[in-house]
Amino acid sequence: MVQISGLYAIIDPSRCSNASGSGLETIARAVLRGGASVIQLRDKSSSGRQRFSRAQLLRSICRDFEASFIVNDRLDIALAVGADGVHLGPEDLPVRSARAAVPDDFVIGASAGTPEVANRLENQGADYLGVGAIYEARPSKGDASPPRGPEALGAVVDAVDIPVIGIGGINAENAPQVIAHGACGVAVIRSLLGADDPERAARQLVDAIR
Amino acid sequence: MVQISGLYAIIDPSRCSNASGSGLETIARAVLRGGASVIQLRDKSSSGRQRFSRAQLLRSICRDFEASFIVNDRLDIALAVGADGVHLGPEDLPVRSARAAVPDDFVIGASAGTPEVANRLENQGADYLGVGAIYEARPSKGDASPPRGPEALGAVVDAVDIPVIGIGGINAENAPQVIAHGACGVAVIRSLLGADDPERAARQLVDAIR
Repeated sequence: MVQISGLYAIIDPSRCSNASGSGLETIARAVLRGGASVIQLRDKSSSGRQRFSRAQLLRSICRDFEASFIVNDRLDIALAVGADGVHLGPEDLPVRSARAAVPDDFVIGASAGTPEVANRLENQGADYLGVGAIYEARPSKGDASPPRGPEALGAVVDAVDIPVIGIGGINAENAPQVIAHGACGVAVIRSLLGADDPERAARQLVDAIR
Repeated sequence: MVQISGLYAIIDPSRCSNASGSGLETIARAVLRGGASVIQLRDKSSSGRQRFSRAQLLRSICRDFEASFIVNDRLDIALAVGADGVHLGPEDLPVRSARAAVPDDFVIGASAGTPEVANRLENQGADYLGVGAIYEARPSKGDASPPRGPEALGAVVDAVDIPVIGIGGINAENAPQVIAHGACGVAVIRSLLGADDPERAARQLVDAIR
């Protein structure tokens, strides 16, 4: 089974033009050089064909770095490119149905806000859980609800046996708090994609997690 | 292998309020009573979870009528609900990649406008082809190009060994022309979803195809 822990970098192609104008591949390689252990492709607006092409590209780059590769939402694209897994949100395919359609070693991640949801998703076959937003609402998810804080993550960690990662407003300053509450890793978008130097930003996050 | 022929009814939930206000299930049952042999769910705007629920519903209804059930675009949803197959357009997952990810008896349909494209898709593993628009541009596909006419379908039929169905502006009056050019069936949206009596409209189409 692929390990989901450490720095989990979420790459959204629509947000991949940082100050130095880097594209998808440049940013992916930079965060992997900086020590990210997982890349997730989150692509909400492109056609299936475009997502497939981007997923193929990231799949190949992650192999170069022996990093795990996860596709958000689209299980079919994850399977078609040989990704390590899929991440399913509450509006995506149900975890139980996805589990029944994939090989045992294919990773299914899911999003949980509370111990009750976390328990249910674990029972349905989720391999890891993302809990958020920890520090701030996620503009990337149109999420207007208030941040849950690292304590909410701690409650989920206590409730399940599968790995839990934190997401939402996490940076090198607050990442140690998330880990201290039991997370095995942190998922990050803004602190990486918005950084002038994504490699350096990734390295600082990896150092902060250790 | 499931048979793709006869009346192939495309059900788009966003177009399922006809004059009598029928919903998805009512219309599906009506066109199946009328003799449709295939139902395709085409759902371009809903969340993955909603598409999954609708696909589950249609999967179950099609079983009652021993009709085939195809999901447009989303291979993962097709697999998760146990559909008979998926239909992939040019903006969807490539046929070759989909073929590699599914069981041999899972049907993959694809859209071809010319013999060249048709040959390529057959070689990539497509089980049947849809050719269109035969009679009019498809507002459902944002398709502004002129209709190809039944002769274009005939050229595709001559070029491949897999079944070919026509689509685009087909009704009970012109369906016999499409069949006469070698189609094994006709795919229909408007003539069914827009009909006051979808069951009767389906029956007229089935009679016209025979």
